[in-house]
Amino acid sequence: MAQKPSIPKGTRDFGPAEMARRNYIFDTIRSVYALYGFRQIETPAMENLSTLMGKYGEEGDKLLFKILNSGDFLRGVDAQELSGEGSPKLASQLCEKGLRYDLTVPFARYVVQHREELTLPFRRFQIQPVWRADRPQKGRYREFYQCDADVVGSDSLLNEVELMQIIDEVFHRFGIRVCIKINNRKILTGIAELIGQADKIVDITVAIDKLDKIGLDAVNAELAEAGIPQPAIEQLQPIINLSGTNEEKLATMRQVLKDSQTGLKGIDEVAYVLQQYALVTAPASTGRVEGGAPLQLDLTLARGLNYYTGCIFEVKALDVEIGSITGGGRYDNLTGIFGMPGLSGVGISFGADRIYDVLNQLELYPQAITTATQLLFVNFGETEAAYALPALAACRRAGIRAEIYPDASKMKKQMQYANARAIPFVALAGETEMADGKFTLKDMNTGEQTVVTAQEMVEKVRS
Amino acid sequence: MAQKPSIPKGTRDFGPAEMARRNYIFDTIRSVYALYGFRQIETPAMENLSTLMGKYGEEGDKLLFKILNSGDFLRGVDAQELSGEGSPKLASQLCEKGLRYDLTVPFARYVVQHREELTLPFRRFQIQPVWRADRPQKGRYREFYQCDADVVGSDSLLNEVELMQIIDEVFHRFGIRVCIKINNRKILTGIAELIGQADKIVDITVAIDKLDKIGLDAVNAELAEAGIPQPAIEQLQPIINLSGTNEEKLATMRQVLKDSQTGLKGIDEVAYVLQQYALVTAPASTGRVEGGAPLQLDLTLARGLNYYTGCIFEVKALDVEIGSITGGGRYDNLTGIFGMPGLSGVGISFGADRIYDVLNQLELYPQAITTATQLLFVNFGETEAAYALPALAACRRAGIRAEIYPDASKMKKQMQYANARAIPFVALAGETEMADGKFTLKDMNTGEQTVVTAQEMVEKVRS
Repeated sequence: MAQKPSIPKGTRDFGPAEMARRNYIFDTIRSVYALYGFRQIETPAMENLSTLMGKYGEEGDKLLFKILNSGDFLRGVDAQELSGEGSPKLASQLCEKGLRYDLTVPFARYVVQHREELTLPFRRFQIQPVWRADRPQKGRYREFYQCDADVVGSDSLLNEVELMQIIDEVFHRFGIRVCIKINNRKILTGIAELIGQADKIVDITVAIDKLDKIGLDAVNAELAEAGIPQPAIEQLQPIINLSGTNEEKLATMRQVLKDSQTGLKGIDEVAYVLQQYALVTAPASTGRVEGGAPLQLDLTLARGLNYYTGCIFEVKALDVEIGSITGGGRYDNLTGIFGMPGLSGVGISFGADRIYDVLNQLELYPQAITTATQLLFVNFGETEAAYALPALAACRRAGIRAEIYPDASKMKKQMQYANARAIPFVALAGETEMADGKFTLKDMNTGEQTVVTAQEMVEKVRS
Repeated sequence: MAQKPSIPKGTRDFGPAEMARRNYIFDTIRSVYALYGFRQIETPAMENLSTLMGKYGEEGDKLLFKILNSGDFLRGVDAQELSGEGSPKLASQLCEKGLRYDLTVPFARYVVQHREELTLPFRRFQIQPVWRADRPQKGRYREFYQCDADVVGSDSLLNEVELMQIIDEVFHRFGIRVCIKINNRKILTGIAELIGQADKIVDITVAIDKLDKIGLDAVNAELAEAGIPQPAIEQLQPIINLSGTNEEKLATMRQVLKDSQTGLKGIDEVAYVLQQYALVTAPASTGRVEGGAPLQLDLTLARGLNYYTGCIFEVKALDVEIGSITGGGRYDNLTGIFGMPGLSGVGISFGADRIYDVLNQLELYPQAITTATQLLFVNFGETEAAYALPALAACRRAGIRAEIYPDASKMKKQMQYANARAIPFVALAGETEMADGKFTLKDMNTGEQTVVTAQEMVEKVRS
């Protein structure tokens, strides 16, 4: 036999069992998004490279999959470039199109391109694969799905609150216990103002994050090493030692940042979101005794600093060691890169692949989703098959996923098929059953066999 | 403002309204496939070019979208090739991967690659986009979805019957009146044997197809022109003039092809499928007075001759002028190209884009699918919004897709938003309503306003 065919590294096939689980994830997210008034869009897998290039930094440009132009792709190419290594410049001469790298830039492009048709605020969600020429490793793929929801054209913090609610509802439906971390870019800006060094904010958050592990002295030493002057380190002490409830933290921060207008605005924003979130996820609102997932102010949260401008959030699973499984935030100029400035937006993105890993590890999938075919009719030959077909039709009409083994193979083979596919019920009809107008229905879990009419079979399989 | 961004030609954005319609199509097909025991798989967008090349003919190779290798893509490239036009040889040196061109070859690759895990017969369906560098034109796109179902590992004609049932059920659910055309490759082989010229079979079917338009004499003249000798044309007369019911046609063909074992086998196969299909789509089986869609033997049907080996089918919409909207057939060696010979299969493929066009033209979409958000809460300010939030939560808990306008914009703007989005209900609460613990619910279709409690609102919107 020839060499077994394979797929490109970093890509995956999804078989029926995996698809059932993935569909469960996507369907859950999709229906919660819809419940909150978000509407789905889809954009093409290929975008013009001019749309994608320069949006993800120099490293991102390199990770774009580029599509070779059709026809004579060497026409008009700079001969000089052909003699060296394959350069980025040559690549953009050979390729006009690339595969989308995320859903955010295509969404920004979509909003600008279709702005005349859109009614703002626009609440959209999008669940599609993206492609990155990253080095593949455990949990990192070259093709993976993103599940994004964004509201553009509204500055209201209610959008932030609703996105937190969506996160809470989705993970509640999955049965995954999570903690939502919230921070605000403006608070970080306030801290940078405080110490007079905006470029050190990453060093600071990284150092603060280590407090539990290395202790206060080591953190302060690290800050000094990073070139932060002693007076600034002194001022940072209340931030590094920040603890207590969200309210206590906010009160401390209000004191520390009392001279930064931007910082205070960030504190107000977080305070509002925390307060409203508490209200809408209270037991009376959610109908759950335990209320919503905890929402925690975390000053070390600093995702995508160059991108976000207001609240930022991240979700951690409480019962599995894994990175952030959802994230997002507010940006004030998403569409500016395409010549439409001043449109504010806020969005979240569920990490489907990590959620898949968490659900697998905690075995949280509902039993029902893994059952594909519910009933198999055994095939004893042409006459018996003809006898079974009307009953099969009746089952399907009743919404039961059912099939007949297509060939009159040996009984053992057919039962093996039912077992391999975890089909819970098998129907048999030989001479005796046919004479009585009945079927023997075997429950594959208990082994129990009962003789039933077609109608009784429908009811039994359904229940 | 900068130039409006755009997308590559032949690709499309799908906005919320289009997505609702497309999801309706995909969900319908998906649930019927599942009802018949088919299970979903997905394969990567990118396949190794070695998997794709040579599978779609020379023309197909040219239409593959190829992905430029990452890093130094010129390494190891033949310098000679760089001095000429962009050649196919050079393309395969620059590119290892390509976008999938259809779902059939990736499925064959999947079956061979995963053969140890699969229990045969394997009933799979797959709904994913494919990409072709075709010249874009009306109704032909460079990115489009295919919706395939196949059974591999079973020779039984019951599979053909079930696939016809699936076609019937899907179009019944859509409300599209169709006629299913069936033919058999073996019958066409029999005809070729009869006239002693296998390579003329396409000319013959093309000529026969024109009978209604140009008349018998012109058809015979065309056959002679195509180089078919007079005695053979004589023998073809009963085939050209074939008419009547399926049974009458089969009886005639049985006579004409009495000396061709292959031809007679093809006739038997078609006869079996027709007979079983009639049985399973009779009113008693489908629960519909009109029974199933008509299934017609059509000798002019000759799709993919080099590929199919048994029954072939195609579906025509009766009320719209459009090409085939679904097709398929039996093949005996799908996986042979990947070194796993002898695996027979049969499959169908729904043309989602054409079905979309048909549904649009006949306006057959159910009303319900176009309603996204069912209820909008008007936002009069912070206090009023806070009053509305628990009711909003209650609505969503009851499964109602609801939202609150995020900003306290002018009433007119908020109502325009509700209208533009075709939201059927709007809830308002000002001082009066808040004092009474109620809401004014406006039915946007009738204009009727009623004062209700949150619970009454849930019931009213639901009904």
